[in-house]
Amino acid sequence: MLPYTERSLGFMGSIEDYSRADAAIVGLPMDYTVSFRPGTRMGPHHIRTVSVGIEEYSVYLGRDLADKKYIDCGDVELPFGNVPESLNRIETVTASILADGKLPLMLGGEHLVSYPVIKAVAKEHPGLAVLHFDAHADLRTDYLGESLSHATVMRKVAELIGGSNLFQFGIRSGTRDEFTYAREHTNLFVDKVLEPLQEVRLQLGKRPVYVSLDIDVVDPAYAPGTGTPEPGGCSAVEILRAIHLLDGLNIVGFDLVEVSPVYDQNDRTSLLAAKIVREAILCF
Amino acid sequence: MLPYTERSLGFMGSIEDYSRADAAIVGLPMDYTVSFRPGTRMGPHHIRTVSVGIEEYSVYLGRDLADKKYIDCGDVELPFGNVPESLNRIETVTASILADGKLPLMLGGEHLVSYPVIKAVAKEHPGLAVLHFDAHADLRTDYLGESLSHATVMRKVAELIGGSNLFQFGIRSGTRDEFTYAREHTNLFVDKVLEPLQEVRLQLGKRPVYVSLDIDVVDPAYAPGTGTPEPGGCSAVEILRAIHLLDGLNIVGFDLVEVSPVYDQNDRTSLLAAKIVREAILCF
Amino acid sequence: MLPYTERSLGFMGSIEDYSRADAAIVGLPMDYTVSFRPGTRMGPHHIRTVSVGIEEYSVYLGRDLADKKYIDCGDVELPFGNVPESLNRIETVTASILADGKLPLMLGGEHLVSYPVIKAVAKEHPGLAVLHFDAHADLRTDYLGESLSHATVMRKVAELIGGSNLFQFGIRSGTRDEFTYAREHTNLFVDKVLEPLQEVRLQLGKRPVYVSLDIDVVDPAYAPGTGTPEPGGCSAVEILRAIHLLDGLNIVGFDLVEVSPVYDQNDRTSLLAAKIVREAILCF
Amino acid sequence: MLPYTERSLGFMGSIEDYSRADAAIVGLPMDYTVSFRPGTRMGPHHIRTVSVGIEEYSVYLGRDLADKKYIDCGDVELPFGNVPESLNRIETVTASILADGKLPLMLGGEHLVSYPVIKAVAKEHPGLAVLHFDAHADLRTDYLGESLSHATVMRKVAELIGGSNLFQFGIRSGTRDEFTYAREHTNLFVDKVLEPLQEVRLQLGKRPVYVSLDIDVVDPAYAPGTGTPEPGGCSAVEILRAIHLLDGLNIVGFDLVEVSPVYDQNDRTSLLAAKIVREAILCF
Amino acid sequence: MLPYTERSLGFMGSIEDYSRADAAIVGLPMDYTVSFRPGTRMGPHHIRTVSVGIEEYSVYLGRDLADKKYIDCGDVELPFGNVPESLNRIETVTASILADGKLPLMLGGEHLVSYPVIKAVAKEHPGLAVLHFDAHADLRTDYLGESLSHATVMRKVAELIGGSNLFQFGIRSGTRDEFTYAREHTNLFVDKVLEPLQEVRLQLGKRPVYVSLDIDVVDPAYAPGTGTPEPGGCSAVEILRAIHLLDGLNIVGFDLVEVSPVYDQNDRTSLLAAKIVREAILCF
Amino acid sequence: MLPYTERSLGFMGSIEDYSRADAAIVGLPMDYTVSFRPGTRMGPHHIRTVSVGIEEYSVYLGRDLADKKYIDCGDVELPFGNVPESLNRIETVTASILADGKLPLMLGGEHLVSYPVIKAVAKEHPGLAVLHFDAHADLRTDYLGESLSHATVMRKVAELIGGSNLFQFGIRSGTRDEFTYAREHTNLFVDKVLEPLQEVRLQLGKRPVYVSLDIDVVDPAYAPGTGTPEPGGCSAVEILRAIHLLDGLNIVGFDLVEVSPVYDQNDRTSLLAAKIVREAILCF
Repeated sequence: MLPYTERSLGFMGSIEDYSRADAAIVGLPMDYTVSFRPGTRMGPHHIRTVSVGIEEYSVYLGRDLADKKYIDCGDVELPFGNVPESLNRIETVTASILADGKLPLMLGGEHLVSYPVIKAVAKEHPGLAVLHFDAHADLRTDYLGESLSHATVMRKVAELIGGSNLFQFGIRSGTRDEFTYAREHTNLFVDKVLEPLQEVRLQLGKRPVYVSLDIDVVDPAYAPGTGTPEPGGCSAVEILRAIHLLDGLNIVGFDLVEVSPVYDQNDRTSLLAAKIVREAILCF
Repeated sequence: MLPYTERSLGFMGSIEDYSRADAAIVGLPMDYTVSFRPGTRMGPHHIRTVSVGIEEYSVYLGRDLADKKYIDCGDVELPFGNVPESLNRIETVTASILADGKLPLMLGGEHLVSYPVIKAVAKEHPGLAVLHFDAHADLRTDYLGESLSHATVMRKVAELIGGSNLFQFGIRSGTRDEFTYAREHTNLFVDKVLEPLQEVRLQLGKRPVYVSLDIDVVDPAYAPGTGTPEPGGCSAVEILRAIHLLDGLNIVGFDLVEVSPVYDQNDRTSLLAAKIVREAILCF
Repeated sequence: MLPYTERSLGFMGSIEDYSRADAAIVGLPMDYTVSFRPGTRMGPHHIRTVSVGIEEYSVYLGRDLADKKYIDCGDVELPFGNVPESLNRIETVTASILADGKLPLMLGGEHLVSYPVIKAVAKEHPGLAVLHFDAHADLRTDYLGESLSHATVMRKVAELIGGSNLFQFGIRSGTRDEFTYAREHTNLFVDKVLEPLQEVRLQLGKRPVYVSLDIDVVDPAYAPGTGTPEPGGCSAVEILRAIHLLDGLNIVGFDLVEVSPVYDQNDRTSLLAAKIVREAILCF
Repeated sequence: MLPYTERSLGFMGSIEDYSRADAAIVGLPMDYTVSFRPGTRMGPHHIRTVSVGIEEYSVYLGRDLADKKYIDCGDVELPFGNVPESLNRIETVTASILADGKLPLMLGGEHLVSYPVIKAVAKEHPGLAVLHFDAHADLRTDYLGESLSHATVMRKVAELIGGSNLFQFGIRSGTRDEFTYAREHTNLFVDKVLEPLQEVRLQLGKRPVYVSLDIDVVDPAYAPGTGTPEPGGCSAVEILRAIHLLDGLNIVGFDLVEVSPVYDQNDRTSLLAAKIVREAILCF
Repeated sequence: MLPYTERSLGFMGSIEDYSRADAAIVGLPMDYTVSFRPGTRMGPHHIRTVSVGIEEYSVYLGRDLADKKYIDCGDVELPFGNVPESLNRIETVTASILADGKLPLMLGGEHLVSYPVIKAVAKEHPGLAVLHFDAHADLRTDYLGESLSHATVMRKVAELIGGSNLFQFGIRSGTRDEFTYAREHTNLFVDKVLEPLQEVRLQLGKRPVYVSLDIDVVDPAYAPGTGTPEPGGCSAVEILRAIHLLDGLNIVGFDLVEVSPVYDQNDRTSLLAAKIVREAILCF
Repeated sequence: MLPYTERSLGFMGSIEDYSRADAAIVGLPMDYTVSFRPGTRMGPHHIRTVSVGIEEYSVYLGRDLADKKYIDCGDVELPFGNVPESLNRIETVTASILADGKLPLMLGGEHLVSYPVIKAVAKEHPGLAVLHFDAHADLRTDYLGESLSHATVMRKVAELIGGSNLFQFGIRSGTRDEFTYAREHTNLFVDKVLEPLQEVRLQLGKRPVYVSLDIDVVDPAYAPGTGTPEPGGCSAVEILRAIHLLDGLNIVGFDLVEVSPVYDQNDRTSLLAAKIVREAILCF
């Protein structure tokens, strides 16, 4: 067409031919059940935009995105304010990706989006284990009367796959009831990320594993761009190492949620998110 | 109790005894049907906070808030993400205020909150006229498949009270369909605020009038803190004059919506909103 | 492919088939000769991003982008820091668009990008008149020793097409020498936009006209996102009216430059720019 | 010394030899009596910094700073938190400038700094008239128990020079008591700037005139960087015209106060302030 | 009154009945002796506002605010700019709290506010030890000629209670004279927080202890919202652990100072402060 | 001249007499070859401005700037957009400083400025070793076709002084080719700073050493104000310790580059830079 011009088409290094892709990036711009500060709907678009500012090669892994085939399918079009229909669409999209034999890499949006994704993945992969990285336990039965909320998402997941298959890392905030529930049903590691992950990965063997990463597991110093920042988290280096520890596991799905560009500074939360996605693509 | 200390309890000059109040300020922190940028849920709290930075006396009107009796009832507790139940609660609260013989002064929140408020007011005041100040026509039949949305609110109002009772000022954005509908059913004034208002106020006589003011009717230069800024609006001086033109009308309800503190700069949108509320209290 | 998903591909309403397009939007992300504050290279990307937040219908004109065929070709890839090669590529791209019989709609970048564009347009359209909207005269012979600079661009244009064919509106800043030159060679209107434009449009008849619009012609209150804000400009309403005054002229090229997202607030400069581009597409 | 290097020494165009200067710019970085939001102490430094971004030539006046001789003496060193000693030092500095036969051009800082400056000027120039541009009347007898405060400064001035010699423009905020006082003692023009100034300038003849300009007389859309923004003010164009109207008067002192860089956006308040100072130097 | 509505009355979980409270939170909005960047006066209000965004339960301690009885008395009304009277009021308020048998939990405001608080506490509790967490030694004899300043506060405290009873942690900035003084009179630990605190807590036994925490002891990465950020401090995790180390001591007073919301980003300094206050209430 | 006033003349503690200075600070405000986000040209000015907010005494080293003699020569005047002439001027200025027997302390600006500085230093000091602290390898042969670019600067240095004399610390980003080149030619330490530096310093003995510090070697949590932030870097404490490790080496030149104030938050990147410069002056 025109000389020199180019049109950006998604996450750095993504290919354009859906049929050839081994993985599919999809944005889930939902943020209407959050209680504190909405804004994560712009997360997927912004992570794509800043991804061009980092390299496609990872010196940590000695691998290059150029050797991977994945597509960025853009955002799912959601009916803002309609929670059931939104969850429905997300589940349908995830099921399509799985049916096409691709790995779903989902970008939130609020944390509730993980629930329909995991529902579709669990249907496809019996015996699924979920690794949950977060500052918040997200184990409430309801939040302000609603059972489908960013604060209840892992309770729903626990009920779906069985609490013993849910592993929660870095958690440092929740109600007394949530921690009581966690002690009885899930595997929750307060504040720690790397140490327990090193143990858990050994137990997982070849089981299908889904990874749900709420960016607020990272300290707000490293990831300020999120809706409910909780001081006292891990560093950027630690979360990147956590991804590297997943290398070799049988990862069947991944989401990175709660990046909120409007609360970011100098895009560094989006840049960290883009780097996490890069390492995830290179590891999974 | 303690010497020198004080606890702030709401909008400047508000009294604490509900039974003595002639008007009630209520915050409606809902923002989950918006399509572009949420964040108006923090509007009511922020308008209260900055209101202490301006005077209680209006030199424009020569009147003082000290001579008015109104209460600030705080925010309605809403189930985030549940649109029907949220609208239900807002209507119930408005009906309570009206039943107690007080004037409702509602602070949004997204524009959809006006619908349940107007429903309650229209039930109490047959023959209601609605004055709508906005950059957007808000006359869609649905938005992304949803019939209850910030973009459909005035269509619902037109259907409720009859389009001929709806007067729309300052409108400068909408689809072709919305303007076609407006030409046939409502009284819509493109871009202009003061000139048509001077005409309309004469026609209204003693009819009960409800005023719905979306802050984005004002140009983003004067009111940047809103979710869908639309360049080309009126100035701060003009919107204050518009309020003064309402002096003498039979105002039975008022809302000011779409103030979004996270997009504001130096709080000046919230300050303008607080000043509008002050002039409204002094005029109505 | 996937249900519900979409990938954004440029300015709102743009089509994807180059051959069917009557106009081509191209981004020119150059900002390396600016003296005060660089940052306009992100302008084109950001104007595209926010354009989805406004309507495709213009109530001012009663026209809809749905009835227009234009493509957004993305940004020209530039060798950062290499001024001659950058200008060369911009001229080549513009010549291609003209050769393909399309109207070039260029988004800056710094103002120097207008020079190679106008060079290509002037070659194609003898007798070209240039309408220049700006706060600054941009008529220096050199700037810090460089003859190719954002501060010399209109001097170069005047030398290219003849100063009497250059019409400068809204100018309110420059050196004594620049204004002396303007008085002798160009048509410069200090501070005013609409009044002189109404006169000039009558003189232009069917002559080919190029429009170069530096966003800083608008007051920083309405367009803060620019590198050298100059208080005392026109309003958003006035610049939109200026575009409408161009309706009926024989416009053969257009650029909008100096939008700097990093200095913007709540994206309102980019939104105003997107709205100007919309009105331009609907008028030209 | 070193080739190519330069060290910036103050406001653009200022000379370095005190003895040759006809006017002296001095910064007064005091902001400790303000009640709402401090931060103006960084005003003088920031106005200097951004002044290099605008031209030394004024196309409005056809004059150039190159033809004027003024020095920028930097900031007065103040004991933070000690109001009486701070005012004392400011008065001493002003008296020195006057004793050396120079025109004082003072940059605030909070508005209280005008009081010691005017005290020194009034001592030197009997029959002084003060022109006061502000959003606020500043006529309280005390503020939170303190008689020396940014909110009482013009009351103190009125008591010093006689209220009939005080002319207040653009005022749109104050208590009922302040406006009652103004009606009885001073010349206060609500909301208006240019119209009353045109009248007043005719009355002043050859009287010595002091100009005190609080940047918040300008609307926050044009001057957001101030501590107590008050929506509804004049535009940047209007305040520049007001300065031009002072041309020909016998100006014996000037201050520009309440610029607060921390609340500014893209430095446009500081830029407007720098432009006002430029026009003032060229007019006085 | 009205259904669903609520009015927020202070720090999360605070009760409204003063007589039943075991502790009293009081805001001290003073910031007029600071030399670099004022703005801490909005600290107390902002810490309250964001406190609702975190949980009342602490998973670190396994305790819940619901089991504690404390009141938030709001801010002390201060005469801005009048240092002696301000300190006087703060001392009076503190003495009242102590006389009523409650624990004072004071929120600054600049660090000088600690002096009158400690004066009142020391009178009530002979043999008082003060634990001081800060980036700055604050041991000057005077600052710009003033002996009462944020930079002299701990010198005044040392003179009041004896330097050997003052323990300073995390200090990494000061003049040569301050460190010379510290070596001779106080217990100052450069840069370190947790290690020396573990030693000191063992020495303290049942002595009455006052804790003064300047938020800038934490690195600006974790606590950017402060007036004199000093790179090189401890992390959020470390300061929370420091609070936990105080568990079991005989704490008789506490202050947290120098939170400056205007310099904060995404409220994370205020959130960290709110979390520190929560842990303090649960520990003391 | 005037009582109490002072004019700031550069970095804190700098003297004014060039001939007496042992070291010279010079700003290099160049940022036109950067590919992602320009803005570092304001770095030198801003580092100077904030330097007054920190102490001249270093408690880490027990030394005081009062005992050092250095001058701040201001910024080099550069022709914006002209890369060859800009590099030429920088080399000339550096050669002058060296010819006058002073230590050059250069403040960027983009990283390319290090190349002409090192060229001049290498000419003066044969056998030069370069210590390079950075997140990026900067070892490309060209960038977008240009061989002189911020991304190629260390490749040029390696070619100039021999790759074995280049020591690269903290590197965590680059292309596969760059790391291949590094393995074969330079001494590159991935991610680590302190450990390898402790080894390298022992090898250097009395060799002349140049230090080039790109602020983005520090994690964006501690140094957000830079153009290409790369999550996963060292902390503020670690970079200060790295400077201390240089104590005792034969340092013959130093630069600190890529500080970009427009992307900073609360000036903490500039403050960290100022503190690094202070420690460098005290160590070298």
